Amino acid sequence: MAEEGAEVCNKQIIFRDYITGFPKESDMVLSSSKMSLKVPQGSKAVLVKNLYLSCDPYMRNRMEKPDKSKLISQTCKLCSYSFGSLLIGFVLLGVAKVIDSGHEEFKEGDIVWGRTGWEEFTLLTELETLSKIKYTDLPLSYYTGVLGMPGLTAFVGFYEVCSPKEKEYVFVSAASGAVGQLVGQFAKLTGCYVVGSAGSKEKVDLLKNKFGFDEAFNYKEEPDLDAALKRYFPEGIDIYFDNVGGTMLDAVLLNMRLHGRIAVCGMISQYSLDNPQGIHNLTNLISKRIRMEGFLVFDYIAVQPKFEEQVHRYLKEGKIVYVEDTVNGLESAPAALVGLFTGRNVGKQVVAIEHL
Amino acid sequence: MAEEGAEVCNKQIIFRDYITGFPKESDMVLSSSKMSLKVPQGSKAVLVKNLYLSCDPYMRNRMEKPDKSKLISQTCKLCSYSFGSLLIGFVLLGVAKVIDSGHEEFKEGDIVWGRTGWEEFTLLTELETLSKIKYTDLPLSYYTGVLGMPGLTAFVGFYEVCSPKEKEYVFVSAASGAVGQLVGQFAKLTGCYVVGSAGSKEKVDLLKNKFGFDEAFNYKEEPDLDAALKRYFPEGIDIYFDNVGGTMLDAVLLNMRLHGRIAVCGMISQYSLDNPQGIHNLTNLISKRIRMEGFLVFDYIAVQPKFEEQVHRYLKEGKIVYVEDTVNGLESAPAALVGLFTGRNVGKQVVAIEHL
Repeated sequence: MAEEGAEVCNKQIIFRDYITGFPKESDMVLSSSKMSLKVPQGSKAVLVKNLYLSCDPYMRNRMEKPDKSKLISQTCKLCSYSFGSLLIGFVLLGVAKVIDSGHEEFKEGDIVWGRTGWEEFTLLTELETLSKIKYTDLPLSYYTGVLGMPGLTAFVGFYEVCSPKEKEYVFVSAASGAVGQLVGQFAKLTGCYVVGSAGSKEKVDLLKNKFGFDEAFNYKEEPDLDAALKRYFPEGIDIYFDNVGGTMLDAVLLNMRLHGRIAVCGMISQYSLDNPQGIHNLTNLISKRIRMEGFLVFDYIAVQPKFEEQVHRYLKEGKIVYVEDTVNGLESAPAALVGLFTGRNVGKQVVAIEHL
Repeated sequence: MAEEGAEVCNKQIIFRDYITGFPKESDMVLSSSKMSLKVPQGSKAVLVKNLYLSCDPYMRNRMEKPDKSKLISQTCKLCSYSFGSLLIGFVLLGVAKVIDSGHEEFKEGDIVWGRTGWEEFTLLTELETLSKIKYTDLPLSYYTGVLGMPGLTAFVGFYEVCSPKEKEYVFVSAASGAVGQLVGQFAKLTGCYVVGSAGSKEKVDLLKNKFGFDEAFNYKEEPDLDAALKRYFPEGIDIYFDNVGGTMLDAVLLNMRLHGRIAVCGMISQYSLDNPQGIHNLTNLISKRIRMEGFLVFDYIAVQPKFEEQVHRYLKEGKIVYVEDTVNGLESAPAALVGLFTGRNVGKQVVAIEHL
């Protein structure tokens, strides 16, 4: 138990106002408030010191006015951030250390992961997403990525939504990102031919030399995406793992093979547009009998134990690798979030508050 | 066996040239040629007199230049019509009577269905699609529709692609057409709530009063399709059976429920457009975890016997009804095909050459 009455100044990132278009650093503001480092007497809450925080594209959609939100709808059971609230994630967003606990399952010093906030200390009262970290023999920050939500997203998106088979042709967009880099490696482990697209030479090199993609290209240097895909997939594409939507999706539709599958994981190119781009090539769904399926990771939480065990083993055996882009300090978080939409990050974007 | 040497003048519809845009009557021409009413000696061919011919939207796509075809691609194993060739279908296109046969499975007088041509008499040399008609206690023309390809399309599209459950909300576009009218009735038999859209008051009345749809509306009288769908589906749509694509599909995406399914059967609104309309609301696939799947009936030929038995029983028991729009004479066929694209037909479009 922490010392009675100890008070700290808790730095927080506060969401300033609803946004339209691209998020800007000025949409978020660094604030601070006094906070006791002890859970209230009789409470079952848990007080944590945040160590690593996740930074994900979906957060931008929660900064829109609820009725204007294109991705987040009432029926989706997600809600937008309240005006002036902390930026928080809906699942598995951070890694933290327990400072004080009123709950029997957690004690001071435990390393945990789950829903926390973009702040130094968080008093957690809803504990359903909180878990003690099982594997501490890998970087703890991995629970914001490869062993956390993005990892599970890649795992279920590829293995469950894409129904992959050996020797199939797989294309991944935003392939060096938190999810994409794993999808490509899962596809290689399955015996597929894998090509990824990314937005810089550095990322393309990473895909080919670090993640083992068969080929990779910089979409910014391809004025004709259809022609680029025909070059990399003369036989066509069996599986497209879509992280970007828009013109890339439209070009992919022209290059799909019979009975192809498109897992729609994200459409980062569209989130900040007032009028999303039109997709013109959907008649290919019919002639090629394509299944196109959107998914959200929290429908698959039951898969987490199996996923965690398997991916931990892959990491230990060196069968998969993971690249993070870490910024230090909460004050760096807004720029890191904004940077996701310009492709500034190389690998999974993490905000480290304290390295452990 | 027919009389040795008997010759007739065989009327045929010939495809004049590759088309762009909407098909016109002048794209097809009535021609005729002399023909022997006997199969060549030693041949295993079957000579038939055509009775009922089918008239389907997909035929238009086969009139495009192969490399320009938006729906029909190389990988699809369908090919465009050859320049100056007969208009033929790829499966189950007509009902006919055997005049002469060199094949042991067929004899003079047999009533058959399968791939035939838009002509009075056809000499069939490839017999893999030809079958003797099993149920002759219903109109023979039903084998161009409810018991033929459109029926099987509705059957597998609804039961296999849509995975329907009782009490789900089902929307069908082009709902009075060859396929749509059956989808709606299958949905009612499954215990779903069903709404259909069509393009005239007469069709809307048919949907409500003849086919038992819960509701129906004339899309031409709805300037705001999103608002119309919200009126008919305040709880949203679980299943959309898409026959039209375009703006209707875009509006539907805004109104889908969580884990909804979209069976993409056709996009008749798009086939004649040089630049298909853009679909802007695909991010809903993610937030609502929607599966959108294109299909073609000939992947499901194995289901035909089960389908035929079940739908024949439904028809005999009066559990489903079927409406055809029949024009008489081969010379009426081009106008009938063109009319599909302006919604002239009410129900399945059939061309009767000889009523039996």
